[in-house]
Amino acid sequence: MRLKHLLIGHPLHAIQAEAEQVSVFIGLGAFASDAVSSVAYATEEMLLVLVLAGSAVSFGPAIAALIATVLLLVISSYYQTVHAYPTGGGAYNVARENLGVYPSLVAGAALVVDYVLTVAVSVAAGIAAVTSAVPDLYPHRVALALGAVTILTPVNLRGVRESGRLFALPTYLFIACVLWAVGAGLVHLFAAGTAASGAPLPPVPAVPTEAISAAGAWLLVRAFASGCVALTGVEAIANTVPAFKEPAPRHAGVALIWLGVILASLFAGITFLTFELGIRPRPDETVLSQIGTSVFGHGLPYALLQFSTALILLLAANTCYTGFPRMASLLGRDKFLPRQLAHVGDRLVFSNGVIILGAAAALLLVIFQADTHALIPLYAVGVFLAFTISQIGMVVHWRRARGPWWQWRAALNGVGALATGVVLIVVASAKFIHGAWVVLVIIPLLVWFFVTIHRHYDDVEWQLKISPDAPLRGLSHTVVVPIPGITRPVFNALQYARSLSPRVQAVYVSLDDEETRQVQALWNQWNPGVELVVLEAPYRAIVGPLLEYLNIVEQEHRDDLITVVLPEFVPHRWWHHFLHNQTALLLKGALLFRKNVVVIDVPYHLNL
Amino acid sequence: MRLKHLLIGHPLHAIQAEAEQVSVFIGLGAFASDAVSSVAYATEEMLLVLVLAGSAVSFGPAIAALIATVLLLVISSYYQTVHAYPTGGGAYNVARENLGVYPSLVAGAALVVDYVLTVAVSVAAGIAAVTSAVPDLYPHRVALALGAVTILTPVNLRGVRESGRLFALPTYLFIACVLWAVGAGLVHLFAAGTAASGAPLPPVPAVPTEAISAAGAWLLVRAFASGCVALTGVEAIANTVPAFKEPAPRHAGVALIWLGVILASLFAGITFLTFELGIRPRPDETVLSQIGTSVFGHGLPYALLQFSTALILLLAANTCYTGFPRMASLLGRDKFLPRQLAHVGDRLVFSNGVIILGAAAALLLVIFQADTHALIPLYAVGVFLAFTISQIGMVVHWRRARGPWWQWRAALNGVGALATGVVLIVVASAKFIHGAWVVLVIIPLLVWFFVTIHRHYDDVEWQLKISPDAPLRGLSHTVVVPIPGITRPVFNALQYARSLSPRVQAVYVSLDDEETRQVQALWNQWNPGVELVVLEAPYRAIVGPLLEYLNIVEQEHRDDLITVVLPEFVPHRWWHHFLHNQTALLLKGALLFRKNVVVIDVPYHLNL
Repeated sequence: MRLKHLLIGHPLHAIQAEAEQVSVFIGLGAFASDAVSSVAYATEEMLLVLVLAGSAVSFGPAIAALIATVLLLVISSYYQTVHAYPTGGGAYNVARENLGVYPSLVAGAALVVDYVLTVAVSVAAGIAAVTSAVPDLYPHRVALALGAVTILTPVNLRGVRESGRLFALPTYLFIACVLWAVGAGLVHLFAAGTAASGAPLPPVPAVPTEAISAAGAWLLVRAFASGCVALTGVEAIANTVPAFKEPAPRHAGVALIWLGVILASLFAGITFLTFELGIRPRPDETVLSQIGTSVFGHGLPYALLQFSTALILLLAANTCYTGFPRMASLLGRDKFLPRQLAHVGDRLVFSNGVIILGAAAALLLVIFQADTHALIPLYAVGVFLAFTISQIGMVVHWRRARGPWWQWRAALNGVGALATGVVLIVVASAKFIHGAWVVLVIIPLLVWFFVTIHRHYDDVEWQLKISPDAPLRGLSHTVVVPIPGITRPVFNALQYARSLSPRVQAVYVSLDDEETRQVQALWNQWNPGVELVVLEAPYRAIVGPLLEYLNIVEQEHRDDLITVVLPEFVPHRWWHHFLHNQTALLLKGALLFRKNVVVIDVPYHLNL
Repeated sequence: MRLKHLLIGHPLHAIQAEAEQVSVFIGLGAFASDAVSSVAYATEEMLLVLVLAGSAVSFGPAIAALIATVLLLVISSYYQTVHAYPTGGGAYNVARENLGVYPSLVAGAALVVDYVLTVAVSVAAGIAAVTSAVPDLYPHRVALALGAVTILTPVNLRGVRESGRLFALPTYLFIACVLWAVGAGLVHLFAAGTAASGAPLPPVPAVPTEAISAAGAWLLVRAFASGCVALTGVEAIANTVPAFKEPAPRHAGVALIWLGVILASLFAGITFLTFELGIRPRPDETVLSQIGTSVFGHGLPYALLQFSTALILLLAANTCYTGFPRMASLLGRDKFLPRQLAHVGDRLVFSNGVIILGAAAALLLVIFQADTHALIPLYAVGVFLAFTISQIGMVVHWRRARGPWWQWRAALNGVGALATGVVLIVVASAKFIHGAWVVLVIIPLLVWFFVTIHRHYDDVEWQLKISPDAPLRGLSHTVVVPIPGITRPVFNALQYARSLSPRVQAVYVSLDDEETRQVQALWNQWNPGVELVVLEAPYRAIVGPLLEYLNIVEQEHRDDLITVVLPEFVPHRWWHHFLHNQTALLLKGALLFRKNVVVIDVPYHLNL
């Protein structure tokens, strides 16, 4: 307990749970880290596939433009969601309200998977930014990634006060650094034709003129699918509308538009520079780091770029520690996950969700050896599945809610749904063998899990239901008191038993004939007015004979409720327990699983 | 439970505990394995010190003769003990009866240490016999030793029917093999001057004529101390007198004399051959194995010698699995060790003692890397401490009991006590820095441990004592029923509470204002005739507010006994527990440590 308080902090009073409402500028910075940080790896993932295509590599900018188009569509769709669901328009809520239970569970499962993957991918990419700058750390990347998760988890159990100002800083720092690098790169490219480091820029690869093969075309599709990870995280603002200053939907909408503009610019800039500088992916250095060194050299600006990259990625991982437990608590509240996930802990956070997220992300990081490229194929499927369900839900929403221009709004969300749906199919098929199949197996399993849990809760609720007009009836008791001898706790227990019913039986299990005779003699001398029954224990276990005797008592007193009163002495110090038989504990355990028997613990506290 | 039955077997009925009574021949074989097996390493341990003394090595036979003399004294002393204590004359019993509590505890501690060391030393030496014959196994000796303990422990939890015939066989096989080797060796030495293997025997070292230095003399003392391990185990027959056929003391006495004769012959024979053959200790081959190869070569007789050596050593370890738990049960019965050690388990063995012995021996084998030579310095101290206390106890016994020739008997035990006492001092000082200090620290610690436990049991007994003429009084109850809502288990719990007392309060801890209003409305509608108290939970923990409320109830109803009735529903399958809050369990835990509160569990069993 003390250790817990040291690590996690003392319990917080409910009154300490106050929400801070933020401006567009702060809100964009605080909630967009997940989305913005994905440009740190999106171009590289695209490039990794394109280099396999040989000369087709020059299609890169065209693919990036296509991805940016999808991005703008998704942003417009969410702009509408933000206004339609001012209390928070997550895919789970929207689907539940408009499409029914099963689609919402699919969206919920997709989001659960996404949050875990976002932590794993962001941490892996953040560590890659660090090891790019300090190559000596490269062999220790798994340990570093686990270290990051090990720090994030208790920090979030403590509960991070979502200080918008503090959280916005790394996002803007990263945006500034990337824009600086892109700007400097462009200036050098067009003005001098050489990089800042003084080395001549590599030649721009020639645009191929010949037609590309079918295999090449498939690689282009795969490159598109990989690049789509740039879109991950854009739903964050739609989930957190109430955190904006009033009028919240308006402010959240403006933030969303700015997010689209920033994301598109950063992605376009990084992609353009990558291709213009002829950068190729390397296992030990990220593409963004290569841009940095080729534009800035190895000085302070480069270090700042890498630092801000690592920082925003860790912040993106950190936001999942708010998002996942909140998602899990919604599922718990709706009885699709264990209800404990819906309970706010000591520190006003959904502690169980935080722990589960940390454990799952750590597991993924170990399995995939903290390798971003290995994790990416699992990533985009869940994201686009949630997008698509959410947009379809919005179409249904407009059909129901109507209002001005509703057909246009429905059409916009419909086009969004179509686009993300197509991307979903492309991503799922293009990356199926590379890992997407894992997610396509896990999501249905999660849905089945949700439904099974829900059914259990419904069953239990039905069984526990009471018609609230039933009156309390009187009960007739037969009481059995197992005794280990004639002691003070036994005295108290018998007294208690007698206050409950005149039908009390003391039961002594005989392990030694001589002791049994002594107990019987003492009992007769004492004569407490209670019958003493002696049971034989041929196998020297006490619990067995007692349970058998209870069967007999039950048959003899069919109309009575059977109660077992356990005389128990509680040692003064916990380790004294080791010096005493745990018969009472064993009996309690055995009786818990026996129907129609009530157990009474009459404790007797020792003084030393 | 099923796993336990598979490994350990089904429980045995008390009637299956029948003792087998054995003849002198069988008894000697069955109970002497510990004593006889020590000749497998005693000579080697002596030699290991002597080789450090250079030319003084030729004093070996003289030291061996001195050890044999001590052996005969100890045997004669125990011959008297066997007749004086026909129900078993272990050092603990004899000391307790004649010298009082503290000396008996010292003897008990010494024996506890001895049993653990006997297992460790015997297993290590047994594995050494195997690895001498199969050198490829030498690097795996620690794993092999742990494997042996891992087999012995569950076998003894199952309970080895002490089949005398079966247990006597390995002892006589070993005796026969050693006698054969010694006989063959002597024949070759005197008749042909060459070993059976055809190789010429090494020259007999010349007896030194010059005086030896002080350092050399100290080495001779240390060699004597090391050789004294040959005496370990001779007390076994005195401990097991009742197992012999009637008249038991007579038969046990005869067995003891035979043991002395056999032990002395084997030790003398092995030592003589070792020195005549010029054998020197080697880390990877035991001295006995070297005698075997040099007399028999590498054929079948040699294999048989090594096999029988390993077998008798493992059997010696096995006898401790009977002796240690019996010793621990005596200490447990007398309340010097946790009472659980005095309980006979399912399989009619003192299971807890078996487990503790196995764990302690395994620990020693790992710490000392299954190296006999490293373990030996710890060994003899405890043995000779127990011998000495036992003989002193016998002297007191004769002074009290008198009888014919009592002065002579007392004198014989007195000489025995003096001899073993001197050996004890020699062993303790000669091996102090080599490891004996460990035992000299542990034995007083154990005694302190015994005394502390005893004091605790006495305290508890005193506190639990009841004057058996006190009548049972009536009780006045106030009952508190914590409720999670209005459900069937709550209905049952309230009904139970009302049957106990008219003063019942239902307590609801409010975590959510809306839910609380619903519960209150339902309660008013139901109107069960019980007051509903709503508590606030600012820290969202349920247990804290309930405990605080109990304080208030206690102050309001000072004359009443407070009872908490817990409505608890029991899921159909154990893993369903994970889907429900363990509030009842937490409450039970918290209330166990609260004085003057009785807890009643009213379980409600779900059907699916």
